[in-house]
Amino acid sequence: MAFNSIIVRLELNHSLISFGDVAAAVSRAGGDIISIDVIRAGTDNSVRDITIQGAEDAESIIVTALKELPGINVVNVSDRTFLTHLGGKISIQPKMPIRNRDDLSRVYTPGVARVSMAIHESVDKAYSLTIKRNTVAVVTDGTAVLGLGDIGPHAAAPVMEGKAMLFKQLADVDAFPICLDTKDTEEIIRTIKLISPIFGGINLEDISSPRCFEIETRLAEELDIPVFHDDQHGTAIVVIAGLLNALKVTGKQMSNVRVVVNGIGAAGVSICKMLLAAGVRNLVPVDREGIIVRGQSYSHPMWQWLAEQPQVGNHPGSLQDAVVGADVFVGVSRGNVLSADDVKTMAPDRIVFAMANPHPEIDPEAALPIVRVFATGRSDYPNQINNVLVFPGLFRGMLDCRARTVNEPIKLAAARAIAAVVTSSELNEQYIIPSIFNEKVVENVRRAVIEAAILTGVSRRTPPDFR
Amino acid sequence: MAFNSIIVRLELNHSLISFGDVAAAVSRAGGDIISIDVIRAGTDNSVRDITIQGAEDAESIIVTALKELPGINVVNVSDRTFLTHLGGKISIQPKMPIRNRDDLSRVYTPGVARVSMAIHESVDKAYSLTIKRNTVAVVTDGTAVLGLGDIGPHAAAPVMEGKAMLFKQLADVDAFPICLDTKDTEEIIRTIKLISPIFGGINLEDISSPRCFEIETRLAEELDIPVFHDDQHGTAIVVIAGLLNALKVTGKQMSNVRVVVNGIGAAGVSICKMLLAAGVRNLVPVDREGIIVRGQSYSHPMWQWLAEQPQVGNHPGSLQDAVVGADVFVGVSRGNVLSADDVKTMAPDRIVFAMANPHPEIDPEAALPIVRVFATGRSDYPNQINNVLVFPGLFRGMLDCRARTVNEPIKLAAARAIAAVVTSSELNEQYIIPSIFNEKVVENVRRAVIEAAILTGVSRRTPPDFR
Repeated sequence: MAFNSIIVRLELNHSLISFGDVAAAVSRAGGDIISIDVIRAGTDNSVRDITIQGAEDAESIIVTALKELPGINVVNVSDRTFLTHLGGKISIQPKMPIRNRDDLSRVYTPGVARVSMAIHESVDKAYSLTIKRNTVAVVTDGTAVLGLGDIGPHAAAPVMEGKAMLFKQLADVDAFPICLDTKDTEEIIRTIKLISPIFGGINLEDISSPRCFEIETRLAEELDIPVFHDDQHGTAIVVIAGLLNALKVTGKQMSNVRVVVNGIGAAGVSICKMLLAAGVRNLVPVDREGIIVRGQSYSHPMWQWLAEQPQVGNHPGSLQDAVVGADVFVGVSRGNVLSADDVKTMAPDRIVFAMANPHPEIDPEAALPIVRVFATGRSDYPNQINNVLVFPGLFRGMLDCRARTVNEPIKLAAARAIAAVVTSSELNEQYIIPSIFNEKVVENVRRAVIEAAILTGVSRRTPPDFR
Repeated sequence: MAFNSIIVRLELNHSLISFGDVAAAVSRAGGDIISIDVIRAGTDNSVRDITIQGAEDAESIIVTALKELPGINVVNVSDRTFLTHLGGKISIQPKMPIRNRDDLSRVYTPGVARVSMAIHESVDKAYSLTIKRNTVAVVTDGTAVLGLGDIGPHAAAPVMEGKAMLFKQLADVDAFPICLDTKDTEEIIRTIKLISPIFGGINLEDISSPRCFEIETRLAEELDIPVFHDDQHGTAIVVIAGLLNALKVTGKQMSNVRVVVNGIGAAGVSICKMLLAAGVRNLVPVDREGIIVRGQSYSHPMWQWLAEQPQVGNHPGSLQDAVVGADVFVGVSRGNVLSADDVKTMAPDRIVFAMANPHPEIDPEAALPIVRVFATGRSDYPNQINNVLVFPGLFRGMLDCRARTVNEPIKLAAARAIAAVVTSSELNEQYIIPSIFNEKVVENVRRAVIEAAILTGVSRRTPPDFR
C-alpha cells in the first residue's frame, strides 16, 4: 500500500514526442503525474521535472517505460522522500545576529563571563540564561527503530530529526537528536546523565525492550529533569485517550470492562499500568506464551509485576481464550493474530485497537463490520493512535513548569486532555481521537500536564497563565 | 575597563521633571545614554526605556542618582548583557514545514523507514541523509572556562552557545553545545565517542590542561571525524598567522629568529609545536619554573616532549634570562610578568604577543613605545589574536571535504590563509591580523583547509569547487 514519489528530469525532442505521449506512458505504467516544472523550454526541445506518484514497486516500471519512448532522454530520477532528507532536516539558528564588536562582547567574551558566573553561583539560573528551559534531547541507541529493529545509531538519525521537526513545529520545543553508539544499559544511563546539563528534558526513543525499562527508571531516579520513553508512554497515553472516548460511545465504564492487552513489550507494559491507574478492574495481559496469570512466577520483571496485580485474572489460556467475552482488545504485537471469528467471540459493542504496524492484529476490512469502535496505528483508517498527539504538548507543559519528573497523574492528565479535544457533539465511532494537526491538542495537553505537575508537587515554576 | 549596559525603565511626571534633567543626572553619575525608547507618552507623564553605558561599578551610582530625582519612578533596571542571554541564544529549526499528512509521511513514518534503511545498508549515507555533514559538537566539561577556571558544565553553557552562534553566522555550520557533567578523562573520551554518530566534527572547548591533551589525542585516534581543541590550536593558528606577517614587517625569517614562548599550557604547547612545524630553529619555552631545557627530564609529558626537540635550547634560567636577545616573545601565561626594562633587553625590531587576559604579560601602554610589533588578546588594541578567526572556516573546510582528522599541515595552511587576508599593501605594524568581521577570512581558511586535507589524504570528498 506504500506510495512513493519520484521526480524525473526529462529532455524532450518536440519533433518526436509530445508531453501528452509522456503522460499517457506514465499512466499506462501505473504512475500518476502530480506536478510538472519546466526547467528549460525551447522550440525544438525542453527539459521538465515531472513528479510521479506510484506504488513502491512501480518506480522501475515507470522509468523503463519512459526510457523506451522515442525522442526522450531521462536525465535523472530522484526520489522525493530522499530529497526531503538531503542534508538533514533541522538546523541550528542564532536568535540574534552579531553585527559588531559591541554585540560580540555581549554574547561572547568578555560579557558572557558575568552570565557564566551568575549560573556558577546559582545553577538554577541555567533555566533562564541558557537554552535549557526549552531544549529536549531525543535519545536513541538505534535498537528498535520503527518496525525495523536494531539498525544502529546512524540509521536512526532521520527518525530522530523528524521528531525534532515535530517538536518545534507543533510545540516550539527545541529538540536535538542524540544517537548513541552503544547498546549497554549502564553506558546509556551514564552517558545521558553526563550530557544532561544543557537539556530540560529527555525523550527516550526506539530503545529495545526490556532494557528500556531500566534505562528510563534509573534516569528518572537519578536526574532532576523529566525522562520519558515515548515508545512506552506516548502510545499508552493515546490508547487511554481513545479508550476514554470509545467507552463514552458504547456507554460502558472503565471499572466494568474486561480489557485484553496483547503484546507485553515496551508499549504494552505502559498501557497495562495506565489502564490500572485509569480504573480498569479486569485486565488480561497476553504475550507469545499466552495469558499472563495472576500468582504465577515470571522471569521478565514487568510480567512478574503484572502477575502480582489484583486486577489481573488467574485463568491461563491462549489469546483466543482471552478475547472470549472481552469488551476491549488492545494489540501492540504483530499482524493478523486475530481472525474475524475470534473477534466475534468478544462481548457486544466491542472495542478493538489493533496497532501493529504495518499490518494490524486483525485485517481492518474484516474487523470494521463486526466491531463497534476500531482504531489502528495507520493513517488510512479512522481513529489513528499516533503518539505525535502526546510528546509535543507533554514536553511543552513539563518545560513550562520545569517539572522534575513525569508521573502517572501527569500521563493520565495528558490522556484525558487529548480525549477532551473531541467534543461530545463531535464524538462518534469514527472519531474518538483528534487529528495530530488539530490545533487544540498541544495547548490542551500542555495545560493538563502543568496542572497535574503542580498538584503532584513536581513543578518548579508556575507559568504566568497559571498564576 | 569593563563597561556594562543597563536598560532603565523610567516613569516621568512632566510637571516635575524634564528629560533634560534625567540626561544631566545620568551624565553626572558617570553614565552615557546610548538609546531611548518611548514606551508610553502622555501629556502628564511618560514611560521610557533608556539604555545607559557606564563603568562596571557605576550601575548602582547611576540608579541611585535617578531615584533621587523628583517626579521620577524607576520602574525597573535590566542588564543588557543578561537580557541578551535570556532563554539561551540558539534555537533548533526545521528546514521545511510539515503542512499535511503527505509531508508527514515523507519526513517521519512511514517514509523515513526507507531513508533509515539506506543508511543502515551504507553508513556513509549518514553524510548525505542526516545533519551529520553540517553539524559540530561544541564539547566542554566546564573546567577551564575563559579565565574563570572550573565553573562547571551549566555555567559553561552560555560560552558554548555563543560559540554556536559564531559558527552559524560566520560559516553556516550547525553547532550544538554539549556540557559534560564529569571531569574524568576516560569518561569524557567515552561519552564523546558514544554521542559522535550525529556529528561531523568535535570542537573541544575550555577543558583544563593537561587532561585536554590526552582527550584530544585519544579521540583523534579513535574517531573518524576531526577533533579539534580550540583553546590549544585556535590560539596557536592565529599566533602563527600573526607571526608570519610580523616577520614580513620586520624583514626577519622564521628560520633565524629566537622565539620565547611563556606559559606551556594548552595553548603554549600547540604554539610551540606549530612554531617548529613552521620552521623555527631557536625556541625557548618557559613556564613558572623557568626555561624548559633540552636534555632535562620532566614529569609533564609535553614539557618532556619539548626537552627532546633539537630546536630547544639547553641554557637554563628565568623568564628574564630567556628574553635577552630574543626576537619574538609569545605570552600565554598571566598578567604583568614582564617589565619595560625586560622587553628592552630583546633584540631590535622586537615582536611581542602578550595574550594573557584580561591583563597582558606586559602593560600595553609600556610596551607599545618600545616594540616594533605588538599584539594582545584584547579588542581595544590593534592586532587582536582571536580564535574566532579560525574555528568557523576550519570546520567549514573540514565538513565540506569530510576530513577524517585535523593534522599539522591543515593547521599551518589555516594560519597561512589568515595571514594572507592582509595584503602586502595593507600590511603594517598596526595591522598584521585581519578583523573577525573581515568577510574573506572564512572562505580563505576553508579553501586552504580543503587543499591541505586533500593533499595529505585525509579528505573523503572533493567539494564541487575543487573538482
